[in-house]
Amino acid sequence: MNSTIHTLLNHRSIRKFKDLPLTDEQIDAIIGAAQQASTSSYMMAYSIIGVTDSELKSALADISGQPYVKQNGHLLVFCADLHRQTHLASNEEYSEMIENLENSEHFLVSAIDAALAAQNAAIAAESLGLGICYLGSLRNDISKVDQLLDLPKHVIPLFGMAIGHPAHQPDLKPRLPKKAVYFENQYKEHDESLRAFDKEIAGYYESRSSNSRTDTWTEQMKRRFMKTMRMDVTDLVQKKGFNKR
Amino acid sequence: MNSTIHTLLNHRSIRKFKDLPLTDEQIDAIIGAAQQASTSSYMMAYSIIGVTDSELKSALADISGQPYVKQNGHLLVFCADLHRQTHLASNEEYSEMIENLENSEHFLVSAIDAALAAQNAAIAAESLGLGICYLGSLRNDISKVDQLLDLPKHVIPLFGMAIGHPAHQPDLKPRLPKKAVYFENQYKEHDESLRAFDKEIAGYYESRSSNSRTDTWTEQMKRRFMKTMRMDVTDLVQKKGFNKR
Repeated sequence: MNSTIHTLLNHRSIRKFKDLPLTDEQIDAIIGAAQQASTSSYMMAYSIIGVTDSELKSALADISGQPYVKQNGHLLVFCADLHRQTHLASNEEYSEMIENLENSEHFLVSAIDAALAAQNAAIAAESLGLGICYLGSLRNDISKVDQLLDLPKHVIPLFGMAIGHPAHQPDLKPRLPKKAVYFENQYKEHDESLRAFDKEIAGYYESRSSNSRTDTWTEQMKRRFMKTMRMDVTDLVQKKGFNKR
Repeated sequence: MNSTIHTLLNHRSIRKFKDLPLTDEQIDAIIGAAQQASTSSYMMAYSIIGVTDSELKSALADISGQPYVKQNGHLLVFCADLHRQTHLASNEEYSEMIENLENSEHFLVSAIDAALAAQNAAIAAESLGLGICYLGSLRNDISKVDQLLDLPKHVIPLFGMAIGHPAHQPDLKPRLPKKAVYFENQYKEHDESLRAFDKEIAGYYESRSSNSRTDTWTEQMKRRFMKTMRMDVTDLVQKKGFNKR
């Protein structure tokens, strides 16, 4: 196994960081790696906001409900961004572009572009011995995040990433069995492998070094989906000119 | 610079592959790396179809319009997958889950989960000396791809990935200047850096080793958006139970 694959397989989310900011060199390496990720038809349809302002960080931590959004080495917010696409267009050109720009296809493109860049950032950080945690929790109040960052039309916040020097080493979290996720030529139902995973994960939750509990994956998913959450995401997304048709 | 960051910065899309299939060990390493990517609230809301069947590959290549969809070392199709979430639920539980499952928030979650896994796959492959190309072009006819792969409700194809032994070495493609993409604390307009990039990219297109042409990034984006494309993505996505509210 090469060192890159070792880094990839060694990923765990870090939620406690030492009080030590990233250096400019580290940030440059992380952003440079993010920028070189693949991008759909050369659109580079994302932006990254690095948050260093203490008040802004606190406000984002409040939305997220997580202390590590404030206490970390650096905080990034990844945005879907189709604003650059029209920025140098004339008014007439803009009118002609808008129907295509605001469809679901380009919502998908910009979310995927942002995610590919983010994952490169994550891996670059981890290869430097840093830890990361994705912050979907910023979507607890996506409109507020959008306001706080004062994002123009055709730019929306998608998720954050806390980066820093790890102050804990959580257990590696099991993943669904390969055969529940990877199929050859044809999708397969996965009763057996899901039941096997539920058994495995029950053991993991019982025995893990912190936060041990009785649970299965299936039960966890049911709890998550049985109550609605973030139903306002669609309004903000459409208000900002994404996913409208 | 460590070898992982070197791999990340060295990425270029490969569109010509040697006639040499990936080994099972290579595929295992790539899928294993994909599985260890971060996932929103442990949902692992994606599936990967490895396509080896020659007829199926040809049909996907026809949709994509790209010969390297057929001629490669291995072909993956990444899908958004929320089907496992409800698979072991009772009918009553299913009814309670569906409103939340089918909202824009979880469309976003599953697209991002799939993209993070895919980018880990890409990096694992590149670290092994292989090349990759993302295939958004499968969305040229997303309904047909969905049919060909016979995907159940709450599973949709998002994009493909051709992987293989590179048979060419394209130039590294420039990216937008860092200051057009990365901002501290506040989003900034980017007239100047976009104009500078247009100048740079005009030079790149004129001088590159193959397919040289006269073009800028801004003009390319205008051409892309001035005609509508893939307006049917939203219908298929909603028909399959995503992005409905």
